[in-house]
Amino acid sequence: MTHSEQLDRTFAALADPTRRAILTRLASGEASVNDLAKPFSISQPAISKHLKVLERAGLISRGRDAQRRPRRIEAKPLADANSWLERYRQFWEGSFQRLDDLLDELKIREKKTKKHGRAKRARGEQR
Amino acid sequence: MTHSEQLDRTFAALADPTRRAILTRLASGEASVNDLAKPFSISQPAISKHLKVLERAGLISRGRDAQRRPRRIEAKPLADANSWLERYRQFWEGSFQRLDDLLDELKIREKKTKKHGRAKRARGEQR
Repeated sequence: MTHSEQLDRTFAALADPTRRAILTRLASGEASVNDLAKPFSISQPAISKHLKVLERAGLISRGRDAQRRPRRIEAKPLADANSWLERYRQFWEGSFQRLDDLLDELKIREKKTKKHGRAKRARGEQR
Repeated sequence: MTHSEQLDRTFAALADPTRRAILTRLASGEASVNDLAKPFSISQPAISKHLKVLERAGLISRGRDAQRRPRRIEAKPLADANSWLERYRQFWEGSFQRLDDLLDELKIREKKTKKHGRAKRARGEQR
């Protein structure tokens, strides 16, 4: 599997709320399919399907216990997806910075307007 | 759109190599549909379809120039996807750390084995 195909699978696997919730659950420790199915109001076969998608993307693996086959999180593909997104950090930091600058500017303007208003009133001018 | 639905759309939009390449191109500046179609060996309608997916996910927007309708990158959803992944940082940093520890351990063992071998030979013992 190429790096690009791995990213395809990782992002596709993450594009579902149940699969993201399964990863969140596994973040607190490995769990069997039964454990994972409990908090969801969907059938166990449906959970198994989601687990298969996560497994094929390499986001989870199976533990050694032959009976429980507990699933655990595998972080490497998440790290790679994170690295891909990090390349765009300058854009969101840039745009938040622009938003911050705009807010600062608006605050300064507001202060000036208030001051101006008080000065006008102090001179007895109409508002 | 809820935060979860936004993540669904963002991750789904990123799960395609052409759409990721379009974002990479837009990272160096806004571009028209024609500009964006050029480097790809796919039809302009196919590019337009990909642009629609990116647009619906809020990852790109259209500039003001009515004729060119240049597309530009919108970083907020990328920042949110990055934040979601960041929660798992401890896992990949942890697993890389475990790998580092393992490599260190192997190096120490290798050194000990070599030392042991030399000591044996110095005493005239068989290897």
